[in-house]
Amino acid sequence: MPVVMTVEELERFLRREFPQGFHPDSGLGIEAVWERGCRVRQAFRHSSIRPGGTISGPTMMGLTDFSMYVAILASVGPVPLAVTTNLNINFLRKAAPRDLVAEARLLRIGKRLATGDVTICSDGEKEPVAHVTSTYSIPTVL
Amino acid sequence: MPVVMTVEELERFLRREFPQGFHPDSGLGIEAVWERGCRVRQAFRHSSIRPGGTISGPTMMGLTDFSMYVAILASVGPVPLAVTTNLNINFLRKAAPRDLVAEARLLRIGKRLATGDVTICSDGEKEPVAHVTSTYSIPTVL
Amino acid sequence: MPVVMTVEELERFLRREFPQGFHPDSGLGIEAVWERGCRVRQAFRHSSIRPGGTISGPTMMGLTDFSMYVAILASVGPVPLAVTTNLNINFLRKAAPRDLVAEARLLRIGKRLATGDVTICSDGEKEPVAHVTSTYSIPTVL
Amino acid sequence: MPVVMTVEELERFLRREFPQGFHPDSGLGIEAVWERGCRVRQAFRHSSIRPGGTISGPTMMGLTDFSMYVAILASVGPVPLAVTTNLNINFLRKAAPRDLVAEARLLRIGKRLATGDVTICSDGEKEPVAHVTSTYSIPTVL
Repeated sequence: MPVVMTVEELERFLRREFPQGFHPDSGLGIEAVWERGCRVRQAFRHSSIRPGGTISGPTMMGLTDFSMYVAILASVGPVPLAVTTNLNINFLRKAAPRDLVAEARLLRIGKRLATGDVTICSDGEKEPVAHVTSTYSIPTVL
Repeated sequence: MPVVMTVEELERFLRREFPQGFHPDSGLGIEAVWERGCRVRQAFRHSSIRPGGTISGPTMMGLTDFSMYVAILASVGPVPLAVTTNLNINFLRKAAPRDLVAEARLLRIGKRLATGDVTICSDGEKEPVAHVTSTYSIPTVL
Repeated sequence: MPVVMTVEELERFLRREFPQGFHPDSGLGIEAVWERGCRVRQAFRHSSIRPGGTISGPTMMGLTDFSMYVAILASVGPVPLAVTTNLNINFLRKAAPRDLVAEARLLRIGKRLATGDVTICSDGEKEPVAHVTSTYSIPTVL
Repeated sequence: MPVVMTVEELERFLRREFPQGFHPDSGLGIEAVWERGCRVRQAFRHSSIRPGGTISGPTMMGLTDFSMYVAILASVGPVPLAVTTNLNINFLRKAAPRDLVAEARLLRIGKRLATGDVTICSDGEKEPVAHVTSTYSIPTVL
């Protein structure tokens, strides 16, 4: 299953189809795509700080959804926004107030459902701050 | 295990300790607390709309964390912000652009970990839009 | 959504269709069914003891699958064996070497997927030993 | 964090401490251990067949627990049996009636909790039949 969209094609598609979610102020960026996987980034934003000084869980969930959608698009081509059906997240370490980098890996991609896991690190760190497993329902037409 | 903080005491505590998370613009409110449970509300906000017209998953995750924290506080009294260690969410139905109402139920509350489930409905509906199971680590001093 | 199969009809169906899983030595029994839910029992068996003296996690997973299948059958009538697609279990307390009683509750039952949660208690206890959320894929023909 | 027990030491420890779980008839074997990970095997047994002809979910859960325990032991040395606190499993493909091979990877190993993920394949296949994320509570003395 080769990659069918480049980073540039993915960015253009996302800017056009989901301007509410993917725009310059979102802080979201695509770093690389490969067979059934990708690496994406969430730039640090003060609004993501949670009481206590770490980056909030909902921020990580948003980044997870973005990474899985990018990995699905890169594998199957332009499809409408996938809908999360299940998401399980383990918070492993405190997330410092820095960029987050997420790597998604598709474990199974069927016609209707895609399941994968996502490892989220603080920029420059090797030990993950969170690990997520998630399933998405893929709409059938654009 | 009786309730040890009233809704008014909870609101006062949250406003003072977590003004970043619980303030008039957050749209969060506590409706009722009972033994090991509570009902909370997230007022509809346009910023919670996800591409596709439904309410975003991260919004529901934020509401879940709020409801579990309120249920823990009502059970054990004022403790510092609990930290989510695991969260598993099933998205069951499209969430209409309306208020969300969440009911939390503590399944186990130990000295260091609390586990519960949260059922989230669109305001006025009986069928849940999401169901969450979650575990929190409870800090030991305020 | 009324109950469409009685306990007796369910037992007869399961004995005929799944003699490997539901037979006198399995220790499994159906106690009651109601709208979108049921209560089932796993009789204590020495083979379910885990190193350490408690009842094993796999035994609870087997009981969960049984309870969800019974709840689905009671709601939609005889369908072939549902296939688990996701299961999330939290172990809350030590399970004494006694019967286990599980209550299943369907949170959503669609044409192809059913999601529910299951609360498992040691017989005679009120505090659960485990809580499970699970999704099943429902085959379309018998 | 280097490996502190070899495969031979692990097998000897498990045979002595957990003869009920790890014995010749269990079909369980350790293939390799490495820094914060391992590969283990469950030999095919007819009793693991589920109605429908695939290998049962509880069998995979048992294999998951075994693999995580081996990975923890190899990392921290002989500790009493870890207790599963949370387990989330996604079933990805039908498991053929063959040996199962599981690779565990520790994502975080603290003093009291260890979290990891486990990928389970049918022997000789590359695409996983199941993926698991799991957390264990580590007892403090042997």
